[in-house]
Amino acid sequence: MNLKHFYNPASVAVIGASRKKAKVGHEVLSALIHGGYQGKIFPVNPNASTIQGLKSYPDLKSIGEVPDLVVIATAPDLVTTLLQQCVDIKVRAVVVLPFFFERLHGAESHPREVIAGIAESAEIRVLGPNCIGLMSPPTHLNVSYAGDLPGAGEIGYFSKSASILAATLDIAKSKGMGFSRLVCIGDMADVNELDVIESFGEDPETKVIAGYLETFSNGDAFIHLVERIGKRKPILLVKSGVTPAGAKVASSHTGRLTADETAFECVFGRAGVIRCECLRDMLDFAKAFAYQPVPAGPNVAIIANAGGASIIATDAIEREGLKLATLSEQTLAKLSNELENIVNLDNPIEIMSDILAGQFERALRETLDDPGVDTVLMMLTPHATTERIQTVKAIARVKKEKNEKPILACLLGGERVRDAEAILQKARIPCYGSPQKAITTIRVMVNYSRWCSRPKRVVKLFPVNRGKVKRIIERHLKQGKYNVPEIQAKRILEAYGFVTPRGAIATSAEQAAGIADQIGYPVVLKVWSPDIDHKTEVGGVMLGLTNEHSVRDAFDLMMYRIPKIRPDANIPGMLVEEMCTKGQEVILGMSRDPRFGPLMMFGLGGRMVDVLKDVAFYPAPLTAEEAKEMLVSTRTYHHLAGIEGAHAVDIDAIAEGLQRLSQLVTEFPQIKEMDINPFVVGRRGITPIAVDAAMTLEHE
Amino acid sequence: MNLKHFYNPASVAVIGASRKKAKVGHEVLSALIHGGYQGKIFPVNPNASTIQGLKSYPDLKSIGEVPDLVVIATAPDLVTTLLQQCVDIKVRAVVVLPFFFERLHGAESHPREVIAGIAESAEIRVLGPNCIGLMSPPTHLNVSYAGDLPGAGEIGYFSKSASILAATLDIAKSKGMGFSRLVCIGDMADVNELDVIESFGEDPETKVIAGYLETFSNGDAFIHLVERIGKRKPILLVKSGVTPAGAKVASSHTGRLTADETAFECVFGRAGVIRCECLRDMLDFAKAFAYQPVPAGPNVAIIANAGGASIIATDAIEREGLKLATLSEQTLAKLSNELENIVNLDNPIEIMSDILAGQFERALRETLDDPGVDTVLMMLTPHATTERIQTVKAIARVKKEKNEKPILACLLGGERVRDAEAILQKARIPCYGSPQKAITTIRVMVNYSRWCSRPKRVVKLFPVNRGKVKRIIERHLKQGKYNVPEIQAKRILEAYGFVTPRGAIATSAEQAAGIADQIGYPVVLKVWSPDIDHKTEVGGVMLGLTNEHSVRDAFDLMMYRIPKIRPDANIPGMLVEEMCTKGQEVILGMSRDPRFGPLMMFGLGGRMVDVLKDVAFYPAPLTAEEAKEMLVSTRTYHHLAGIEGAHAVDIDAIAEGLQRLSQLVTEFPQIKEMDINPFVVGRRGITPIAVDAAMTLEHE
Repeated sequence: MNLKHFYNPASVAVIGASRKKAKVGHEVLSALIHGGYQGKIFPVNPNASTIQGLKSYPDLKSIGEVPDLVVIATAPDLVTTLLQQCVDIKVRAVVVLPFFFERLHGAESHPREVIAGIAESAEIRVLGPNCIGLMSPPTHLNVSYAGDLPGAGEIGYFSKSASILAATLDIAKSKGMGFSRLVCIGDMADVNELDVIESFGEDPETKVIAGYLETFSNGDAFIHLVERIGKRKPILLVKSGVTPAGAKVASSHTGRLTADETAFECVFGRAGVIRCECLRDMLDFAKAFAYQPVPAGPNVAIIANAGGASIIATDAIEREGLKLATLSEQTLAKLSNELENIVNLDNPIEIMSDILAGQFERALRETLDDPGVDTVLMMLTPHATTERIQTVKAIARVKKEKNEKPILACLLGGERVRDAEAILQKARIPCYGSPQKAITTIRVMVNYSRWCSRPKRVVKLFPVNRGKVKRIIERHLKQGKYNVPEIQAKRILEAYGFVTPRGAIATSAEQAAGIADQIGYPVVLKVWSPDIDHKTEVGGVMLGLTNEHSVRDAFDLMMYRIPKIRPDANIPGMLVEEMCTKGQEVILGMSRDPRFGPLMMFGLGGRMVDVLKDVAFYPAPLTAEEAKEMLVSTRTYHHLAGIEGAHAVDIDAIAEGLQRLSQLVTEFPQIKEMDINPFVVGRRGITPIAVDAAMTLEHE
Repeated sequence: MNLKHFYNPASVAVIGASRKKAKVGHEVLSALIHGGYQGKIFPVNPNASTIQGLKSYPDLKSIGEVPDLVVIATAPDLVTTLLQQCVDIKVRAVVVLPFFFERLHGAESHPREVIAGIAESAEIRVLGPNCIGLMSPPTHLNVSYAGDLPGAGEIGYFSKSASILAATLDIAKSKGMGFSRLVCIGDMADVNELDVIESFGEDPETKVIAGYLETFSNGDAFIHLVERIGKRKPILLVKSGVTPAGAKVASSHTGRLTADETAFECVFGRAGVIRCECLRDMLDFAKAFAYQPVPAGPNVAIIANAGGASIIATDAIEREGLKLATLSEQTLAKLSNELENIVNLDNPIEIMSDILAGQFERALRETLDDPGVDTVLMMLTPHATTERIQTVKAIARVKKEKNEKPILACLLGGERVRDAEAILQKARIPCYGSPQKAITTIRVMVNYSRWCSRPKRVVKLFPVNRGKVKRIIERHLKQGKYNVPEIQAKRILEAYGFVTPRGAIATSAEQAAGIADQIGYPVVLKVWSPDIDHKTEVGGVMLGLTNEHSVRDAFDLMMYRIPKIRPDANIPGMLVEEMCTKGQEVILGMSRDPRFGPLMMFGLGGRMVDVLKDVAFYPAPLTAEEAKEMLVSTRTYHHLAGIEGAHAVDIDAIAEGLQRLSQLVTEFPQIKEMDINPFVVGRRGITPIAVDAAMTLEHE
C-alpha cells in the first residue's frame, strides 16, 4: 500500500480554505503554511481571491494543474460533488474532513457509502470522512486541525478517532516525542487501518507503528498483515470497546460488530501485536522501541540513588515476571573497587543519595559489560544535594558509546526533574516517572523480543478423510440441521483420526443389554434424539452401568422420564457406549469469531471447567509449538503434568488432539462451534478417546 | 499521640546550622527561614556568631530558653551526645537527620538503639534518624532538605524513605496539591508510623492520610489503629517490599521481617486501608478524597466531547466493576430539550467536539440532579475549536453550587490542557490525564464508601470446652511436640464443636477389622505414628475399604510397606475411621502471620486446590458477615452454591466452621498453623465433618 501522495505530495489544494479564524478551513490552511511545507499550496474558495496571503482559486479546475493531494474542508453536503470533481481531473489522494450525522439524522443516502463507491470505481484514495487530517513531520506536511506539527521521529501513528489523535499528539509533544506520520482514518470510507499499517511497514521513516482502533475492517486480513509487518517493526495498539458495555458504545458509533476481549487477547498474542491499555502506555512503550535496542533476555540491573525506589522496582520486576540480574563475581569486584559511598553493592546497586555523577557512570559501564545483564534501569530521586544534571549527562555519554543493550531511566519527581528529563529525552534514553512504568516497559520489550525470535510456524497436516466429513456436513446443511447430532459429530472426528468409544444404537431395552454385553461393562446409556441437543439437561445420560439388568432399567427409565420433560422430542432409541474411566478429562473446543475466524480452546473437562475459569484460547491453525503453549499457559496443564505413576497423563496426545481439531475447523469453515468434552487422556501409549462431541454449523 | 511540638513549635533550634551551601545544615536553616516560619529560630554552631543573618549559639544551653523543637543536622558521630544535651534541658521534640551506615560498617553500638533508649527513658520524642525532616505548611514550618514548602492542604503524608518523600512532594507540587503535614519517619528509633497515623487522626488540619511504608513496627497495633481512624479519614498507603524479591531488598535495609502480599491484601482490606501501587496513584486518589464527597454508589455518568474517550471510559467502568448510570426518562427529556449538537444523548453523553461551554454546563446540572447518578465524570479532549477555558469554568461554577455528589474530570492532552487543568485544580475538581485513571479513582472512592458503611463487627462466641484444648496444647508444648498428631488435633476440634468421623486406633489387623465392623463400611485406614506428619506421602492412607478382608489386608500392607520408606518411624498402629463420602470437600485453614496474627483461609478441598489457586484469606477473629464474604469472594463458592438437588451444599455450615476455627485460633495464640482438609459438607441439616486435621504449634 503506497500512500506517498498523502505523506509526500508535491502540491496540496485546500477546498474550503477560509479567512475566518476557528473555521476548519482556516485552521488547516494555516497549519499547512506555518508547518513549513515546501510544495505548492492552492487554497480553493469561490468567494475570495487571496487567503492568508496566497492566491485563491474558485474551483479545482481553475488551478490549471492536478494537485497531488486535495483536502476537503467544506460543509458536509458539498463533499460528494467535490469528490467527483477530484475524480474528473484525476486527483490521486483526497482527505475528507467533515463529519456526517448519519446516525442522528438518518439520511437516506449515506455519504460514507457514496464516498466508498467513488473511491472503488476510480483510481483515487480517500482518507476520512470524519477525520482530523494527517501530518508528516519529515516532509513538513500538516493538513489537519489537530495542532502544530511535532518534531520528526520514528513513530508512525494512526487513529480512528479525531479527538484521540489530537490528544495523543498533544501528550507526545509534552514528552518531547516526534513522529514520522500521524494519520486519522476516521470513518474509513476507503483508506482503512490495514492500508495505513501496510504503508507504515514499507515507510523508511517509520520504525515503530502505533495506533488507536475501535473496530476492525477485516479481522483475518488484520492478523496476517500485522504478523508479517510486526517482525520488522513493533506494532502497538490501543483497542477500545473491548468490554460488552464499551463495545455497545463503540458499535453505536459505527454500526459494526466488535469481537470480545478474549478474542483480541489471543489474536494479538499470536500476531505479536503489543496491546496497550491506554494512550499514555502506548507512547511510553513506543518511545522505548524507537530509542533503544530490544533486550536479549529478562535480566534487569538497577542502579539507584534511593532505597525506596529500588524496592518498588524490585517488586515490579517480580510482578512482571522479569528477573533481577545476577551480577558476575568480576563485576562485583570492579564495583567494589571503583565505587565509594555505596549503600548496596549487589543488584539493585544503590549509591548514596547525594550522589556523584562519576559513581553512577562507573556503575553503568560495569553493569552494561556484565554478560548476565540484558537491560539497565537507572533511577534517580534527586534531593537538594544530588548531582542531577551531571548524572544524566553521564548516562547520555555512556549510551552514545555503548548502544547494544537497552538503558531506561526513571526520574522520581515533578518540576525538579524536568531539566534532567529533557536531557535524557534528547539523548534518546526513554525516561519514566514511576519505577512500575519503567519495568512494565522493559517487560513489553522482552516479550516482543521473544515473539520475534520464536521458531518459524509450521502447521502439521495429518492424513484425514476429508471427503467423508464433506458429505456429512453437506447433508446436514441441505436438511437445514445446524446442530450435528453426537453420533455424526463422532464420525467426523473419526475421519480426522480421533478415537471414539465403541458403541451402537439400541431401540429396545433388550437390544441395549445385548450391545452392552458385547462391549463389556461398565457402559453408558445416552438418549438418541435429533431433537435433543443438551442430553444431560433432560436426564438423558446414565453412567457406570455394570450389568445387563441395570442397562435394561436405565433404558426404560429414560424412555419413561424424558418424554415427560420434552414431549415434543422424537426418541428413536438410546446410544450404548463403552465407559471410559481410566484417564483425565479435558475439553478441546473451537468457536469461530466473526472477525478472526476459528479460536481453539483447551481446559480441564467436566463440571470443574466453570469453577476453574482456566481455559486457553489461540487462533487456528495451530502449530505443534502453539498447541503446547496453549496447554502450558493453563494451571490445568501444571496439574496434569504433575500427576505421576499409574495416572500420569500423555500431554503430547492432548497437543495432537488440538492440532487435529484445528485442522478440521480450518478445512471446514462451515463449522461454527465444536466441543470434545470430555476428551479422556491416559498414560503415554494409551490412545485418548473423544467421549462426547458437540458440533454446530454456520447458517447458510 | 500528640506531636504538636513537631507540627506547631513556638521555637526551633537547628544544631549544625551552616553557612556553606549544599550542606544539610545550611539547607534546613535556609528552608526554615524562607518558608515564612513565625516562631523563634536559633541556629546552633560553635564556629559562627551569625548564620544566614541570625545570631548563632555555640550550644543549646547558651540559647537561654528551651526550644520547642530541635533539629540535629550534624555529622552522625555527634548525634547521641547532642541528643543527651536535649534531654538535659528538657527539650520535648527532636528531629535527627543523619544517616548511619550501620549495616555496612557494623559498628558495635548501634546508634539507632542508643537513640531509642534515650527516647524511652526521657520525656522526649525523636523523629529519625536517617530522615529528611518534616514540614507543616499551615504553620509555615519547614525543617527539612526536601525542597520548598508546598501550599497548605488537607493531606497528611508520611514516608519511611527520605528520597520517596522528596519525590512525592515534588510530584504533588507539579500537580498543584497542598499538604497539612509531611513527615519523614526514617529509621524510626522512636516516632514510628503508628504515632504519625494517630497524630494525623487527631489533627484538625488533616482530612486525608497518605504514606509510604516498607515494613511495619507492629502489625496488630497497625490494624487496630487504621481500622479506628480509617472510619473518619481515608488512609492511603504505598507498601513496597511485597514480593519475595522486593521484601529481600526491603529487609536488607531494616533487618526486619516483612509479611507477604496475601497478608497485606486481606489485612488492608479488612482495615479499610486503600493500598496504592505507586506514589502517583496515591496522590491521584488522595486528591479526590481531599476535594470531593465520597460517592453513595457505583453509578457513573459520563459527559464527553469525544467518542473515543467515552468508549475507553466505558471499558474502564466495566473492568473496575462500576456501573454506567441509567439516566431517568425525565433527565433524558430535559437533555433532549436543552442541548443542541449532541452526538449521543444517553449515558455516555457526547457533545460535539467544537463544544459550547453552556452545553456542558446544562448536561452537568441535569445529570447531577438525576437520583440514579452517584458520580459524574467530565471528559474534555480539546481541539483547536473547543471552548476549553469556558467549559472548565462552567464546571467549576456548578461544583460551587452543588457539592453533594463527586465530580471528577479527565482532560486528554499535554501542554494544550495545562491552563484548564490549573483552573480545575483551583476549583478543587480532581483532574486526570487518562480515562482509566479517573475511573480507577472513582472505584477506590466507591469501595471506601462501602467499607465505611459496613455493619458493626460482632464476633459470635460459641460455647466451647477451652479447658480441654488448653490441656492438650500444654501437654504437647511440654513434651516439645510442635506437630500435633491428627487424633489430638481432632479432639481439639471436637472441643470447639466440630464433628469428626467415628473411629478408633487398632494395633492389629484383627482389631482393625473389629472396629470397622462396629463403625460400618466403607472405612478408611490411616497410619498412626508420632513420627509421621504427612501420611499420604508414605502411602499411609487407604480409602474406601468395603469389608473385613480388605481392612485386614490394608493394615498388613501398610505395616509392611511404610517401615521400608521410613525405617526411623515408630508405628504403634492404624486409625480406623468411617469414610465420609456424601458431600463436598472444602478446606478451612489458618496460618499465623508474624506481623498480623491469624489469617483464616478457605478453598475447595482435595487435590484441586492447587489447580484452582482460588483461596480466600481474612484476618481472625471473623464475624458471620466476614466468613460469608470470604466464601463469596471465591469461584468455589459460586460452584458450591450452584449445586442443586441431592448434592446441594449447606453454605452456612461452612461459614460456621470458619467462625469456630477463628475462635479457636484467636483464643489459642500457641497455634501456628491449622488445616481442616477436607471439611466435608452436605445438605442443610446434615452435620459437616472434619475428616482430617493438621495442627502445628509455635515454638515456645
